[in-house]
Amino acid sequence: MTEHTIDRVPTREGVIEAAAKVAAILPPTPLLPFEHDGRTIWAKAECLQPMGAFKIRGAWHRLSALSDDERARGVVAVSSGNHAQGVAWAARRLGIDATIVMPADAPRVKLERTKEYGAQVITYDRHTENREEIAKNIAREKGATYVHAFGDPWVIEGQGSAGIEIATQLEAQADRKVSRIIACCGGGGLSSGLSLACPDASVVPVEPEGWDDICRSLESGEIQNVGSNPPPTACDALQTFATFPINFAVLYRNCREWARVSESEIRAAQRFAFSHLRLVVEPGGAAALAAVLANKVQVDDATVVMITGGNVDAASFTQVIGDCN
Amino acid sequence: MTEHTIDRVPTREGVIEAAAKVAAILPPTPLLPFEHDGRTIWAKAECLQPMGAFKIRGAWHRLSALSDDERARGVVAVSSGNHAQGVAWAARRLGIDATIVMPADAPRVKLERTKEYGAQVITYDRHTENREEIAKNIAREKGATYVHAFGDPWVIEGQGSAGIEIATQLEAQADRKVSRIIACCGGGGLSSGLSLACPDASVVPVEPEGWDDICRSLESGEIQNVGSNPPPTACDALQTFATFPINFAVLYRNCREWARVSESEIRAAQRFAFSHLRLVVEPGGAAALAAVLANKVQVDDATVVMITGGNVDAASFTQVIGDCN
Repeated sequence: MTEHTIDRVPTREGVIEAAAKVAAILPPTPLLPFEHDGRTIWAKAECLQPMGAFKIRGAWHRLSALSDDERARGVVAVSSGNHAQGVAWAARRLGIDATIVMPADAPRVKLERTKEYGAQVITYDRHTENREEIAKNIAREKGATYVHAFGDPWVIEGQGSAGIEIATQLEAQADRKVSRIIACCGGGGLSSGLSLACPDASVVPVEPEGWDDICRSLESGEIQNVGSNPPPTACDALQTFATFPINFAVLYRNCREWARVSESEIRAAQRFAFSHLRLVVEPGGAAALAAVLANKVQVDDATVVMITGGNVDAASFTQVIGDCN
Repeated sequence: MTEHTIDRVPTREGVIEAAAKVAAILPPTPLLPFEHDGRTIWAKAECLQPMGAFKIRGAWHRLSALSDDERARGVVAVSSGNHAQGVAWAARRLGIDATIVMPADAPRVKLERTKEYGAQVITYDRHTENREEIAKNIAREKGATYVHAFGDPWVIEGQGSAGIEIATQLEAQADRKVSRIIACCGGGGLSSGLSLACPDASVVPVEPEGWDDICRSLESGEIQNVGSNPPPTACDALQTFATFPINFAVLYRNCREWARVSESEIRAAQRFAFSHLRLVVEPGGAAALAAVLANKVQVDDATVVMITGGNVDAASFTQVIGDCN
């Protein structure tokens, strides 16, 4: 993986601008209360975005900031499916051509929906091909803008817009200032955006066990990768090898807590969301909730847990939920 | 079934009062846009209420209106599970004893959750016992207030509070006045409440085939019942034998359209909600959406469809969703 170069750092002002742009086209996703260990915790249901994940925020902030000339030349992205759909959704709305590079074994619903939004989908083999290279070649050929899934200042600011919504909602619904946001973490785009949005809150990234590059980066003080042989995980959305300096700079400054969750803890969180929140949550979207339910993170009376995505194939969902009884 | 006597009619002012009372304790459920036949339709996701259904509204409006003396003597209700949980939830919050009469074959999640909220649950056999009689005997013995699931002015006004929310949200999100609300219909509490809340909108009750007493009542101009041998339905929440005059008076004045949906149309709607809205919806909560998807009702650019409940056992949900692929 090579880092792409954008000479701009994400800022809180950028997050606030992103929040205004998002608010103009998308209603806020609800902040749903639930009980855990005698406390009320608030779930930010980003799986209820039109394309089923928070990724619509960053994609919208980025694509809507492109010049007419850039729009005419299109965009390229790499994603297992949520960033893909976010970019495809935003591109359709803005009349921009989108090409998305997706793993051939991505959840079917994600592949199909990305095509339905009108994007051109190019699949690759996760085990033998370099997706960044494929995407960059396409970008070069077409003169298209490469929209990275997390290592991009606009994307970070866009994802952070969820934090602005949360702060407003928790104030309105419970007269509280948000003190802690537990977030599912892949490349760190959301966690870094939330850190910028809510500098007085503790943002707690949660990763699947074995895909804990950000936990280890925060522990060691420098960017680590997941290593050459990470374990299988159901969290397709959280399979990133390493974060980028643009994300890590924010995370290292702000994050004091983090957590790892097991595959079975993630499944238990999907079941809890099914039966107590009536939400369809994909594995990667349930990691933060898993950390709360497994008591792997501290919670207080102003804790928000991010439910980041709900794009999951019926077959795998029924397998998880079938254990519910 | 005998009608109980309450010398009060539900009013629009009562609905507005109920909406204010509900807004003070519950955040509005989201109005989620989705595409159907090239149009944007808005889904009012009442399955996201803390106890998973709109019934929390009527229960709250009713119970919070009881005098101290009435509160001390407790409440009694009859329900397959959503009104049960609504009453149990409101009773716990107000420190009122609740006794709920539920069919022994109600969905397990509904039985368990009602008990978890602290209500005393008494089960009966749907085929051999008269639930109203059981409830009224308990009410008489305890001096408790009988809270009917739909034939009660406070309950009607409370359910109608959803209409006030809808009108505000559609105005804010799409700058439109709601013109049509498609509603799942059991006893008609919700449909009559919505009719009072939004007198300029067309409220369209939707019933499962064979449980179409309100459709037939509206067609004939007088209250009909479902007859002695209604077909099996997965919609436990919509199995009412006949509406009450207090509901019918409102419905007959306001409703010009209605629809019946089949069991397979209902299952298709549950699957659509799973994959496109990321919502867990019980069969009875999906009837209105089923009517939209099956083109059994007219829709326009300011149509809202009620998703009324999401309390469903995992086993039956996975059976429905398993057909998704």
